[in-house]
Amino acid sequence: MTLVRDLSEEQILDRIVPLLPRGSSTLVGPGDDAAVLAAPDGRYVVSTDVLVEDRHFRTRWSTGYDVGRRAAAQNLADVAAMGARPTALVTSLVVPGETELDWVTGLARGLADGCAPVGAGAVGGDLAGGPLLVVSITVHGDLEGRAPVLRSGARPGDVVAHAGVRGWSAAGLALLEAGLVRAPLAAVPLEVADGVVLEDAWERLVAAHLRPDPPLAAGTAAAVAGATAMLDVSDGLLRDAGRVARASGVRIDLDPAAFAADRDTLRSAARAVAAAAGLGDPGWGPGRADIDGLTDTWVWSGGEDHGLLATFPAGTALPAGWSAVGRVLEAGESAPAARVTIGGAAPAVTPGWDHFRA
Amino acid sequence: MTLVRDLSEEQILDRIVPLLPRGSSTLVGPGDDAAVLAAPDGRYVVSTDVLVEDRHFRTRWSTGYDVGRRAAAQNLADVAAMGARPTALVTSLVVPGETELDWVTGLARGLADGCAPVGAGAVGGDLAGGPLLVVSITVHGDLEGRAPVLRSGARPGDVVAHAGVRGWSAAGLALLEAGLVRAPLAAVPLEVADGVVLEDAWERLVAAHLRPDPPLAAGTAAAVAGATAMLDVSDGLLRDAGRVARASGVRIDLDPAAFAADRDTLRSAARAVAAAAGLGDPGWGPGRADIDGLTDTWVWSGGEDHGLLATFPAGTALPAGWSAVGRVLEAGESAPAARVTIGGAAPAVTPGWDHFRA
Repeated sequence: MTLVRDLSEEQILDRIVPLLPRGSSTLVGPGDDAAVLAAPDGRYVVSTDVLVEDRHFRTRWSTGYDVGRRAAAQNLADVAAMGARPTALVTSLVVPGETELDWVTGLARGLADGCAPVGAGAVGGDLAGGPLLVVSITVHGDLEGRAPVLRSGARPGDVVAHAGVRGWSAAGLALLEAGLVRAPLAAVPLEVADGVVLEDAWERLVAAHLRPDPPLAAGTAAAVAGATAMLDVSDGLLRDAGRVARASGVRIDLDPAAFAADRDTLRSAARAVAAAAGLGDPGWGPGRADIDGLTDTWVWSGGEDHGLLATFPAGTALPAGWSAVGRVLEAGESAPAARVTIGGAAPAVTPGWDHFRA
Repeated sequence: MTLVRDLSEEQILDRIVPLLPRGSSTLVGPGDDAAVLAAPDGRYVVSTDVLVEDRHFRTRWSTGYDVGRRAAAQNLADVAAMGARPTALVTSLVVPGETELDWVTGLARGLADGCAPVGAGAVGGDLAGGPLLVVSITVHGDLEGRAPVLRSGARPGDVVAHAGVRGWSAAGLALLEAGLVRAPLAAVPLEVADGVVLEDAWERLVAAHLRPDPPLAAGTAAAVAGATAMLDVSDGLLRDAGRVARASGVRIDLDPAAFAADRDTLRSAARAVAAAAGLGDPGWGPGRADIDGLTDTWVWSGGEDHGLLATFPAGTALPAGWSAVGRVLEAGESAPAARVTIGGAAPAVTPGWDHFRA
């Protein structure tokens, strides 16, 4: 078994670089001081995100491949959320010397598979030693002549729509933490998108956590269809909807009926997690309140789903992958303390994930 | 004293973002899913670099300001080494909760001061908790209509030239490690460029290590003057000259006389470091061989100076900041084992820094 510390930096790069996709926008790829990318639009979109071992992933659950897929996905989703087409990413990797080389080459394969659906390139990076794994990615995109779709463009009367899964990542994490699903998942890519249904529905939730599959094409489709605001839902639906509402100076009212199917999907996982946690009436299993509370928390406040939330002018035919989940109101139209309401009422669950506070 | 863990992520960003320069190429700055940058040239340059606590810096020597300056400098140097004008950077910061907020705002100020000489913007980032400080930066640049200057363009007959300091960073680190210079340096920016001479010459070497000041303008000037190859010297002159030589399929012969002034500059520091290490004849202090050995190692193999090495067609009037240090030979013109020679002979010192091997 080869460890990272057995090789020089250049030897490691020699193993990684051939695994990475070049991408169609790449004029100069890895190997020089910098890459050169095409920007036919005369503008480009840039976003960066970092994954830290034991904060954002655990090596006992996530393979290098999983972390690569996830790092690519969450960065590409930020570009898609601007209405842009992702073109290329660069990666800074901090890696302990005792890491297996296979973990690092797996990461490269995961990045490559994460980029494949949109044809983005992996055009450069930096490699450093350190006491734990840190994967920092910066991603770029092409607006293809369109205006960027910001968070600030929602207008009263707009329809609020969502693309992607809701609460799956949080439910998958809870299943892992409760020991109810084995991880790491199989080395072959597990698709959580349409077309492939895993045997075990819980495993789909775990896959959504370990290898999120954001609806990237839905981002550009929304921009083409005239979305007025859009963002990547990474910190929970309520928190991220609140960001659109604040940036746009509006209120957002979510329709609870639009989330009924999500709650049905997640209920069996919630029942099992609640039972494993010893909630509810001993001898009778978890009560309905515990189970509903868990599903609600996952759906409304679960982070890292990397779906897209957008607003569209009323009457817009929503593009494929999008469904209406609420509407945009005047800032004064509901309780002043709540930027986001559910069926007109202030949410009963906590708003979502903060990186420094519980 | 406010610690990072006392604040939410949004509160921390509220303190940092106002300190960051917008930059003239920025169309959409921090606060959305991604930034939008102008690329009037239809292309842009991208590079990424990561700094890890206790690998690339120590908090007992480096303030947050120093780390910000250094992180900006070494990234901007990669863009300059392509012959491009640096335009904007994004930052991923991993920070322990017990870090003082002042360290983080200092980092932002250091980034801002590092960007100021070229007017680059700091247009976005990501913030995560973790057990140690990690600063990952991705930087972008504008080629202004010129071809990128790659490592692969050196041709036999070209002049080899260098801009910036040589061996200062390694000497500064050695002075710090030997306890011969106090750190951290004063909170006010210490300039190591022309115009300001610190009282203590050793402190200039330490400043070059803690707050490198790469010759960014010399990069674009070299491209305009017709440089055939160029790179940022981050891993030592011999190792990086070897990269140009390999990529270009040539040999590089460095002229030892061109480095005599560097060795004079560093000799007093080398004498003190050698004495502190107990080298040489006890009672007589370090011998000449120890001192010359140290200065040679610093000059030829010292990393992190972030000078620029370039090749120019013979007869080119070298732009400001550049001096001739050698020449490009046919691949067969010297000992076949050495891609880089010094005065025609294979170097006697080790080639430089590798991130995973000593």
